[in-house]
Amino acid sequence: MSDPSVHPFTGPNLQAIREAHRRISPYIEQTQVMISYPLDEMAGMLLFFKCENLQLSGSFKIRGAANAVFSLSEAEAARGVVTHSSGNHGAALALAAQLRGIRAWVVMPRNAPKVKVRAVEAYGAEITFCEPTLEAREAAAAKLLHETGASLIHPYDDDRVIAGQGTAALELLEEIPDLDMICTAVSGGGLLSGTAIAAKSLRPEIQVAGCEPANADDARRSLASGHIEEASPLFTIADGLRATLSPRTFAILQERVDRIYPVTEAEILQSMQLITEHLRITVEPSGAVAASPALHRQISGDSEDMRIGIILSGGNLDADAPGLK
Amino acid sequence: MSDPSVHPFTGPNLQAIREAHRRISPYIEQTQVMISYPLDEMAGMLLFFKCENLQLSGSFKIRGAANAVFSLSEAEAARGVVTHSSGNHGAALALAAQLRGIRAWVVMPRNAPKVKVRAVEAYGAEITFCEPTLEAREAAAAKLLHETGASLIHPYDDDRVIAGQGTAALELLEEIPDLDMICTAVSGGGLLSGTAIAAKSLRPEIQVAGCEPANADDARRSLASGHIEEASPLFTIADGLRATLSPRTFAILQERVDRIYPVTEAEILQSMQLITEHLRITVEPSGAVAASPALHRQISGDSEDMRIGIILSGGNLDADAPGLK
Repeated sequence: MSDPSVHPFTGPNLQAIREAHRRISPYIEQTQVMISYPLDEMAGMLLFFKCENLQLSGSFKIRGAANAVFSLSEAEAARGVVTHSSGNHGAALALAAQLRGIRAWVVMPRNAPKVKVRAVEAYGAEITFCEPTLEAREAAAAKLLHETGASLIHPYDDDRVIAGQGTAALELLEEIPDLDMICTAVSGGGLLSGTAIAAKSLRPEIQVAGCEPANADDARRSLASGHIEEASPLFTIADGLRATLSPRTFAILQERVDRIYPVTEAEILQSMQLITEHLRITVEPSGAVAASPALHRQISGDSEDMRIGIILSGGNLDADAPGLK
Repeated sequence: MSDPSVHPFTGPNLQAIREAHRRISPYIEQTQVMISYPLDEMAGMLLFFKCENLQLSGSFKIRGAANAVFSLSEAEAARGVVTHSSGNHGAALALAAQLRGIRAWVVMPRNAPKVKVRAVEAYGAEITFCEPTLEAREAAAAKLLHETGASLIHPYDDDRVIAGQGTAALELLEEIPDLDMICTAVSGGGLLSGTAIAAKSLRPEIQVAGCEPANADDARRSLASGHIEEASPLFTIADGLRATLSPRTFAILQERVDRIYPVTEAEILQSMQLITEHLRITVEPSGAVAASPALHRQISGDSEDMRIGIILSGGNLDADAPGLK
């Protein structure tokens, strides 16, 4: 095993993440890691923002989607790919399919943000709308799979996707090796799983934290209770973070994630504003969640030299979304 | 001479730009080069955006300011630095001085954008306000120089500053070597001079274009008439582009710049919006000007494979500025 992790194996390992990075590097951006002295002062720590909102397709999701699509055999690829997604994974899979020159079908809930619907369309995928429940999404995807013979590329319950998402942390830690903690948003757990595998393998002493809306705190509740909890019925403006863990991602999180930070709706909005003002970039609400614990001094550290890596996960802001006026 | 340029020598050469890059690299960001398929389609060409709006201090100006400040002897540095600037250079010089741990005085016109005044203050420089004319700025700076014994770091009429500004094009061409054209904004001509020296030295066949508001078209008029023309009395929202060339920058532009594109106020606003939507970054009006000729199909090319480098120069958007509501 070339994986230097001290943890028992669950899911893809560091080698799979390195292979994913080699596979997708010709297609994705090596996104910038930004710093800001005023934000450091606000946090009382040193912050390193990995700007996946500046990634192709507008989010980290292209990493996992491209790794899955370019892992398919020629015969599989010829039959196309299917997914269900409230947005960023759908756009990313559409773009990954376009880059390989194959067909893509995307099942989206009727209430998906318009900017995300437009992106899926622009990348040439075919959209099937459904009711905004996980059951309706899965049923519509199953029907498409049956009709087309295409491959399902799940938004997070897929080792190829998890390995691809882990490449963001790989790049971040290759650029800034001495981080004390790395924070990412958690929804279905694909990004957090890939991040935790990459980070704990490269640097066993690092802390890995998931961040989620207090109004969608199923990951925190699941890790506390020891089994996968249902989604909260509450509303959150972080529309990308409403999914729940799968057994696969839950197992990885149980093993390798140190804590989950809940974030209020007001903190999400304020984090978006601070990031726009000081980093001059656009993040969507879900994309700002990972920055919120540091910016709002939720992270307790013993020194101002504590170094926090933050993955800003997406930038596809829907100007029409409620709560953003 | 290690400068492979085919042009006779004027101003700093490629070697000076490489030395500047080594000098400032510990302090600045290697900014991301972004692409966008929808923007390529709009332009009918392939666009490569060098994101100096994501640079420390919010603009490319830190490159020239840091090169000048870190070129000072210990004795000179101990007496501090002075400049006059409508904004981004002032903030950049303030930050460069803070990074070296020396004092900075910045003369700013009373009508400077508030966001830029706040930035100069935040970096710990002392501000002297004056009337918004070049004469008043120069008089106030001369008085400060006399009183303090500090060094003047001019926003553009300075070989150290020009060499520093050239490092953005150096990075861009090291990442994307086969550009057919490179576009930057032109105001006093520091960025365009440094860009032209770097680009024509590294790639003699490249075209170098300056872009400026049609309402502040003194560079175009100057190159047409053969002598430095006065500033236009018209208003432009691109507040950073109201300066006029110096004899030093004019000579470099005459020798190495292929053309100047004028850009309307409406085109500037539309370019800002397109960049925010598709690249998810904030550019100030002056920062969007270099993208406008490509996005509005002013650049005539014989193929869709034409490759255009665009330096997005700054992102310090003043939310209170007229014309931006």
